[in-house]
Order: sequence, then C-alpha cells, then structure tokens
Amino acid sequence: MKDFPEDSVGLVTPQSIHFDQPLTLASGRVIKEYDLVIETYGELNANASNAILICHALSGHHHAAGFHEGDHKPGWWDSAIGPGKAIDTRRFFVVSLNNLGGCHGTTGPNSLNPETGQPYGPDFPIVTVADWVQSQARLADHLGINKWAAVVGGSLGGMQALQWSIDFPDRLHHCVIIAAAPKLSTQNIAFNEVARQAITKDPQFHDGRYYDKEVVPKTGLMLARMVGHITYLSEDGMREKFGRELRSGKLSFDFNPQFEIETYLQYQGERFSTAFDANTYLLMTKALDYFDPAAEFDNNLAEALKQVQCEYFVASFTTDWRFSPERSREIVDALIEAGKKVTYTEIQAAHGHDAFLIPIPRYMEVFGAYMNRIANSLEKNHAR
Amino acid sequence: MKDFPEDSVGLVTPQSIHFDQPLTLASGRVIKEYDLVIETYGELNANASNAILICHALSGHHHAAGFHEGDHKPGWWDSAIGPGKAIDTRRFFVVSLNNLGGCHGTTGPNSLNPETGQPYGPDFPIVTVADWVQSQARLADHLGINKWAAVVGGSLGGMQALQWSIDFPDRLHHCVIIAAAPKLSTQNIAFNEVARQAITKDPQFHDGRYYDKEVVPKTGLMLARMVGHITYLSEDGMREKFGRELRSGKLSFDFNPQFEIETYLQYQGERFSTAFDANTYLLMTKALDYFDPAAEFDNNLAEALKQVQCEYFVASFTTDWRFSPERSREIVDALIEAGKKVTYTEIQAAHGHDAFLIPIPRYMEVFGAYMNRIANSLEKNHAR
Repeated sequence: MKDFPEDSVGLVTPQSIHFDQPLTLASGRVIKEYDLVIETYGELNANASNAILICHALSGHHHAAGFHEGDHKPGWWDSAIGPGKAIDTRRFFVVSLNNLGGCHGTTGPNSLNPETGQPYGPDFPIVTVADWVQSQARLADHLGINKWAAVVGGSLGGMQALQWSIDFPDRLHHCVIIAAAPKLSTQNIAFNEVARQAITKDPQFHDGRYYDKEVVPKTGLMLARMVGHITYLSEDGMREKFGRELRSGKLSFDFNPQFEIETYLQYQGERFSTAFDANTYLLMTKALDYFDPAAEFDNNLAEALKQVQCEYFVASFTTDWRFSPERSREIVDALIEAGKKVTYTEIQAAHGHDAFLIPIPRYMEVFGAYMNRIANSLEKNHAR
Repeated sequence: MKDFPEDSVGLVTPQSIHFDQPLTLASGRVIKEYDLVIETYGELNANASNAILICHALSGHHHAAGFHEGDHKPGWWDSAIGPGKAIDTRRFFVVSLNNLGGCHGTTGPNSLNPETGQPYGPDFPIVTVADWVQSQARLADHLGINKWAAVVGGSLGGMQALQWSIDFPDRLHHCVIIAAAPKLSTQNIAFNEVARQAITKDPQFHDGRYYDKEVVPKTGLMLARMVGHITYLSEDGMREKFGRELRSGKLSFDFNPQFEIETYLQYQGERFSTAFDANTYLLMTKALDYFDPAAEFDNNLAEALKQVQCEYFVASFTTDWRFSPERSREIVDALIEAGKKVTYTEIQAAHGHDAFLIPIPRYMEVFGAYMNRIANSLEKNHAR
C-alpha cells in the first residue's frame, strides 16, 4: 500500500446517496429522484456541530482531498483540506459532494433518465445555485447535520456558500466565500456564451444526444476549456510562466503550436475534452450566469443579506480578473451595509483566479486562522 | 445620386495595382507577383510631400473612408478621414490599402495561385508586419511617394507604422501609433490561439481548402470573432451597453440566447463568419503574434529604435485591455530612452480597444491637432 503524506486524509472512497423525494427546481421542473456522490474526511462529533460543507466550482466534483485507490494526484483542494491544514480534518468533519447535473457520479445529463432508460442529455433540467443549495440541505438532513460549522467554496463554490446563508440562515454558523462575485459581469457571461456556442455548434454535439453515438463534442469542449483557462490565469502569471517562449527556439512560419502558451492551452483543452461531460459544462455555465441573489431584492444585495445570521470570511486575489477583488468587495460592502460580521482579506498572488486552489502561504495562513477560530469556539462550547 | 455629408470624401473607387517583382518574405518564401488593392482620398501635391499611409488592423481593409457605390455605411475610419477631419483630405493625400494576405481584393489565400490555377488556401505564405511594410514601400515607389508625411495606424495598423519607422527611417516624417503594443502579451497570443483552433478544427475548414467545396468554416470564424469582440470591448463598456439585461425580461431556463450580450455576440460572430475569409484571419493573427521588432535587438526596444528619424504620436485609451495604455507607454519609454521626439496621449474612453475607431471628441482633437501641425509645416516648407 502506498504511503500517503502525513498531512493527507489518505485513501478515500466516495459514496453515493439516493434521494427519492422529488426536488422542485427554480425553473419549476421537478427531478423525481437523484443520487448525490459525496466524500467525507474526518469524524462527525457527537453533537454534529463540526461539519463543513465544501461546494465545488465549474469543473469540480466531490473528490476534494486525499487519494482514490491507485491515484497519484490528490483531490482538487488537497492543499487546504487535511490534518493540520487550513480545514483541519482532525477537528472538522468535511463533506464534499458532486453537484446535481455533474458528471462524476451524481445524477446529471450523462445519467440514465429512469423514465426513458436513456441518458438525460439535453433533457436534464437547468439547475441553479439555489437548486444546489436545496439539494445540499437535504444531504445535510440525511447526514444528521442540522447546522454546518461552515459552508465553504471558491468561485462558483463561493456563490453556493453565499446562497446558503440567504436561503437557510439558521443552518450555518460561518460562510466562507473565496474568489467569487455576487453575480457575473457582462464580460463573464460573454465568455460563458463563447464556451456554450463552441460546444453546441460542434457537429459531434448532436443536440446533446451524443452518448449513444460514441462521440463527444471534443473540439467544442477543448475550445471552452481554452477560453476558460485564459480567464483563470492572470496576464502577469501567464507572462512569468510562458512569456513569448518558442518551443523550438525559432519562428516556424506555419500554424503548428510554437509558443509555449499555445502548447499548454491545447494540452489542457484536449485533456479536459475527454474527461468532462459537455452537457454538464453547459449546465454549470448557466448556473453561473443565472446566479444573482440580489435580483429578487430590487438588485439590492444588502437587502438580500438582511436576514442572514452567520459570520462571513471573504477572500480575493489581487490578479484575479475573472472575479476581481472589486467583486468580492461588493459582497463585503453589502454585508457591512446589512450590519453583518465579515472578515475580508485580499491576497497578493500572481496566479489569477486559479490562486484559490493554490497553497499560497499568506492565503492558507489567514484562511487557516479563521477556520481554527471556528474549531476553537466549537470545542469550547462542547467542553462546557 | 446620393448626397454625401459635407465632411465625407464622398464616392470612392478602389483600384488594384499589380506588382510583378518577386517579394521575398521574412519566412524566406517568395511571392512572385501580387496585386494590392488601394483607395486614395485627397490630392497628392506637386512635390509628393503630403501623402499619408493608413495601415489597417486585424479585420480591416483598404476601404477606410467615403462610400462605395450603393453603400449606406462609409469606410471603417471615416470618422477620422475627410475634409476638416483629423486627417484632413483637403490638405493630405491619403492612401489606404488592403494588406498582402487579405481577403478584399489584394492577393491572399482566396486569390488564384498562378502556378496551380487554384486558390492559394493554406499554401499562401505566412506574412509578417515587416513583409507588409516592404510591400507598402513598393506601393509608395509606384505612387511616386519617396517619403510619407506620416504613416498612421491603430492596433495592428500601429504596429505597421512602428515597423515602418525602423525599416525605412528616411521614408516617413511622422509615425502615428494608436492603441498598439510593441509586441503581443502571452494572453494576447493565447486568445489568438483559441481563434485559430476554432477555425482550423471546424470540420468545414478542410485543411484550408474549403473554397472549391462551397462551404466556409462558419462556426470557427464566428467563435473567433466572438472571442475577439470580448477583447475589443471594455468590461465597463459592456456593462453600460448590455448589463445583465434579458431579452424577454425573464430567465428562460433553456440554452437560447437570453442575455442581450449573448444576442449581440452571436449576431456579430455570424455576420463576420460570412464576410471574412478564414485563411486570412489565421494569417492576420500570426502576423500579430510574430510582431516583435525588439527581438533582433536583444529584446531592447530602445536599441531597435536607435536609427529612427521620424517624430511619433502615440495614443492609448484608458479602458483598452487588449493593448492597454501600459503597452503604449512601453513604446513611448523606449522612444524617450532612444532620444526621439514623441507626443503621447492617453484618452479617457469607455469603449475599450474599439475606442480607436470611435470619434471621441478629445481623441479627434489631439490627433487632429497633431496632423494639422504636420500639414502646416508641409505648407510652410512648400511656400518657401
């Protein structure tokens, strides 16, 4: 058996949980039954007060930390979750799930529709951040967790955390929102639309019914991922990492990839195109576009946050241009206006939006300090 | 006959000029003969000293000002060229061409290769900014223009102007560089690569030999243009113009375009996809990527500019994030270091990179003042 690093949660095994109560979505459509795939790290304490929910971003899933059997790479947020890490699994019980509509085991477009015996494909309903939060609340019920110590997420995951605090104010003590925004900008929506057009106009998309054709809209997904990657990296970070370096050292005067950045993007795009489901990608971009909790409150975010009860930790990264610090400050300002408790940190980082996945020392330090404060107060309460 | 506005150059007719001397390109390849399509506005004076060369950007062409027979819209830079405008055609003789590799009449991928009798398609050689400048110098010879009063361009056009000043220091008095950069950033190259992948991976691209198949890589070109458009507009400008406005006023919960920005981008993309040649688009992006006049001078732009003789006018726009003011200042700083004369202006504008095409009052004022100074000095010299 493989030796895992000491600060790793080690070998983890996902589990699938079946929900047979129909879920009515924001669109009005109903999912009659569904499975959520989850992973958990650490132990739930006796009064179920130490549970942390991890919400994933656009291309994320339940496998946030540790290793699956045979894996060489750990989960996507292993840098933040583990014994002694920012989210300390010696103190917290951590729950990470694949969201509804996902493609990693949770019911989604590539699952069989029980009514037809065929994959849902384009018949899978559009799901919103609020829909996910509803399904996550049912997951909490199932796990016997009445109130999360914290709901935590980066990017689209941070939006879920924010929505939790609005929709279930008495079911979380803390809300951790990293590298997110209170809604997409016009430019964010525009980039998403390019991704959607790339996927849906790919001849291999077949109106979303590609599963039985044994093809996938590879080109579309590759292009979507390439555009995505550009928006995840900072201009500075790109320059530092790739510059204008040429693979062969000289211009080739042809259309083969010759700058290092071209090779990198193509590699990332191609790898993604066979690993992720196109219909899920479409759904995730739509959930992003639709997210706008202030909309029902006359576009007044402070008003939307009036009834929240939890404390907030908000973090942004200086070179993030997908969801810039300015966007995080919109959340912070609305919280202040609404008279809520909020801690805000802006982390110096060259990595752009991707920084939220990277164990930047200062970031892990402040994030870890906040999480430790939560753990300390839990243990104090418990000792009483 | 239609009445043209008083400050319009009126009806214009392009002309095609044949060049039968072989042109050796930066790649080492040779174009044996070629045509350049041009338009001219105003009158060349007796000593041929009042000629202005206009260099076009990525999707531009020779039709910069005035109207073609039957047209309702004028050329792409009509706002800056005409009687009494920034480039005053009562004083200047203005030459505008379609660059080699273009798709508006100049020899390019969609032209017949005299050696095969078929369109060049992918056999058309990669052309560089320096190649264009060579071909433009021959055009100057043909027109009897020994020295341009100014070479003028925005974006990729500004790069041509800069290259002119380096390659033919004694053939221009002034160099006007608007919304350009001394070379592309890694991020600029990355966006270009997305466009190229979108085009070349479109099944209708047929390795660039789509002409005889009566198809064009419409989807690829559409996607390329959509990505391009996002980089031409500023985030602020997009928000002001489109916001998060919904076409129908409410979320549709489907994948039809519903935000105004989606409709706009799709419309722009689709219109472009039938109006522009895909192989030309590929060539233009490559000319952009390859542009780097400092490369031969140990990446020292000031060194590259040591031998220049002309005066410079450099302009940038505050919200341009494709070629930000910082990039223009790199040119200005190198000119100052090299001890050259340069006027620099940074224009407040919400329109992003597109601002260079828009008659923003302050922009037209300072640009016009500079051009008038050139005209005044010409006329003074002439009067002597």
